[in-house]
Amino acid sequence: MDYAKESLKLHEEWKGKIEVIARAKVDSKEALSLAYTPGVAQPCLEIQKDIDKSYDLTRRWNTVAVVTDGTAVLGLGDIGPEAGMPVMEGKCVLFKEFGDVDAIPLCVRSKDVDEIVRTVELLAGSFGGVNLEDIAAPRCFEIERQLKEKCDIPIFHDDQHGTAVICAAAIINAMRLTGKKLEDCTAVMSGAGAAGVAICKLLISLGLKGENVIMCDRKGMICEGDPRLEGNASKIEVSKFTNRAKRQGSLADAMKGADIFIGVSGPGIVSQAMVRSMNRDPIVLPMSNPTPEIMPDLAKEAGAAIVGTGRSDFPNQINNVLCFPGLFRGALDARASDITEGMKIAAAYALADFIPADQLTADHIIPYAFDEGVKEAVSKAVYEAAFKDGVARIAYDENYGK
Amino acid sequence: MDYAKESLKLHEEWKGKIEVIARAKVDSKEALSLAYTPGVAQPCLEIQKDIDKSYDLTRRWNTVAVVTDGTAVLGLGDIGPEAGMPVMEGKCVLFKEFGDVDAIPLCVRSKDVDEIVRTVELLAGSFGGVNLEDIAAPRCFEIERQLKEKCDIPIFHDDQHGTAVICAAAIINAMRLTGKKLEDCTAVMSGAGAAGVAICKLLISLGLKGENVIMCDRKGMICEGDPRLEGNASKIEVSKFTNRAKRQGSLADAMKGADIFIGVSGPGIVSQAMVRSMNRDPIVLPMSNPTPEIMPDLAKEAGAAIVGTGRSDFPNQINNVLCFPGLFRGALDARASDITEGMKIAAAYALADFIPADQLTADHIIPYAFDEGVKEAVSKAVYEAAFKDGVARIAYDENYGK
Repeated sequence: MDYAKESLKLHEEWKGKIEVIARAKVDSKEALSLAYTPGVAQPCLEIQKDIDKSYDLTRRWNTVAVVTDGTAVLGLGDIGPEAGMPVMEGKCVLFKEFGDVDAIPLCVRSKDVDEIVRTVELLAGSFGGVNLEDIAAPRCFEIERQLKEKCDIPIFHDDQHGTAVICAAAIINAMRLTGKKLEDCTAVMSGAGAAGVAICKLLISLGLKGENVIMCDRKGMICEGDPRLEGNASKIEVSKFTNRAKRQGSLADAMKGADIFIGVSGPGIVSQAMVRSMNRDPIVLPMSNPTPEIMPDLAKEAGAAIVGTGRSDFPNQINNVLCFPGLFRGALDARASDITEGMKIAAAYALADFIPADQLTADHIIPYAFDEGVKEAVSKAVYEAAFKDGVARIAYDENYGK
Repeated sequence: MDYAKESLKLHEEWKGKIEVIARAKVDSKEALSLAYTPGVAQPCLEIQKDIDKSYDLTRRWNTVAVVTDGTAVLGLGDIGPEAGMPVMEGKCVLFKEFGDVDAIPLCVRSKDVDEIVRTVELLAGSFGGVNLEDIAAPRCFEIERQLKEKCDIPIFHDDQHGTAVICAAAIINAMRLTGKKLEDCTAVMSGAGAAGVAICKLLISLGLKGENVIMCDRKGMICEGDPRLEGNASKIEVSKFTNRAKRQGSLADAMKGADIFIGVSGPGIVSQAMVRSMNRDPIVLPMSNPTPEIMPDLAKEAGAAIVGTGRSDFPNQINNVLCFPGLFRGALDARASDITEGMKIAAAYALADFIPADQLTADHIIPYAFDEGVKEAVSKAVYEAAFKDGVARIAYDENYGK
């Protein structure tokens, strides 16, 4: 199918992939007086007395803003806020269809960190959470950091942490299949943008040793003290806890002897020789979209024990839709004030554990996007973790989701 | 009925009066590839080439932001953005039910003019229009002025202009019934807030002479040069084109001999004696809610020829729902870049003309909220006026709405 042509035609027919509907009908004078004036004054006054009531008396409890500045949309780059809207509306569709979440797309006409932060901060009272989307690195890190500090609702940059959670789930099951221990593994990440940095950090939270990770960007290994890192705060940050041997060189050099390769960079930059140079039973996750760093069949031929990509036409699709709907579902139901590291780890384990041991194979290390029960498994784990981490405003109940 | 109690109960059941739904279903891998990646890249690229395509390929063409800072909510005053949400959601329900418009409530956590303006300006690419709501005067004037200047989409402060349009419609029909001419009338406005100033200006656009208008605030007549006006830009502004005889005194003094009284102030401040002091066949619109400046039966007993209030339990309800749904429907369909004076006047005449001559009586000078065809009449008139005024981006077609 010619997806481009067919999708454009469908978008012309849809004239918008989301729509706002009224849950309260106003088909009579009386109905109008209850949903609007004068009756509506009473719920207003209740919220004025206790702002938390906004979660009971308005849609806030189920509403997430999907916020972008349109600077890193899909693989298209900086196409502007209006041009980013079809993706944001698509994201909102996924929020609804996979997570029962009401999501509202907000495309911001600014690339200034302070302006984007302030805009979202000022609107935080209208939402139960914020999903940052397709904002270019390194700006996205600072925006997320500031918003997490300033807002009392969950802030989640899906390109970073959603990708990291699914990737972590894949790695957890890859360890189970290969019998390797994450503590003993060496890993190479190609790509030090939003996703790369987040994956690196989450895998370290899961047990990977920072000293055993080498992150590479276009120019090769990221090494502490390298003057070329100057001005890039996030690369400098990762250089301080990864690659402790301070190796320098190319991606090919980094991959020699490594157990894990994770690609969030560009198409076709990994050769079969590079896979062959890795440790026994290498785990290869070339996730560049639409064309992976190395095609799965080539990677397997070169000895990869496990391969996962971002594509739906190969096994083991690292697909964000596995995480964010359930993660926000759990966070909203917990009325969480934040998304903690514990909640992300819980989501990763929930996804890994979703596949029963007897169904776990090299070609099935993560659930399929349309598996029934994924949202429920993730939301339950996330809610419980939110409660354990002290960010849930509603206590966790074992019967949640039943 | 105890509206307060019943409404609160309903709000607890509704858990939000609006909801976001998906128009595009994603129930298969293929559907996902068309509504989201990779297919969605194509509509994105089309919009990048021509931003106007955002009206064809996303929901922008039908989407309005309902924006408040929560400072003048109903009669409740400054109750904060979260507490204003039940009203904003209610407004969004009315937008949908009466105008087929998708409206999204945004409650801003700031009372700073520049911050509110900047927030809305940065989000303008996500919407086809902005409805400002329940923002206190005089801040609302400056916010609207700046936004009209900075945005290429319609900006409309309903508390000002919606009220003014309905009030103007009532006055047009009151002239027809009493045989008076607006050019010859003297008018007194009680209340110089958002609605009062807008009504005054729109009636002057319709033919009332500014010199024949006296605006009063709590302290009496507004008179050019009065030092007490200092610091209130909007009152100083109206003082320059109203009350040219530079009269000073009380509301009671102002009402002597006047043809029209319009109240957007407070309950019970007009006595029967004050109505009796007016010119023959006085038109009395005491619109303070929920308690009018004078109760309709008392005003009639004192000789008022025509009385209209904001209440649904008396004849001639000045109800904003008659205007904003149809006005935005027309503006959105025209892809208008602005709301002009001509569009507001057109809406007022459409509402006045909606009542056939043989049904026009003192107790029926404006349509009922639930009259069928009001939205269509208003939207058609507004679209045509937008086109005449050169702000429509889609040419007007006589068959529009048929």
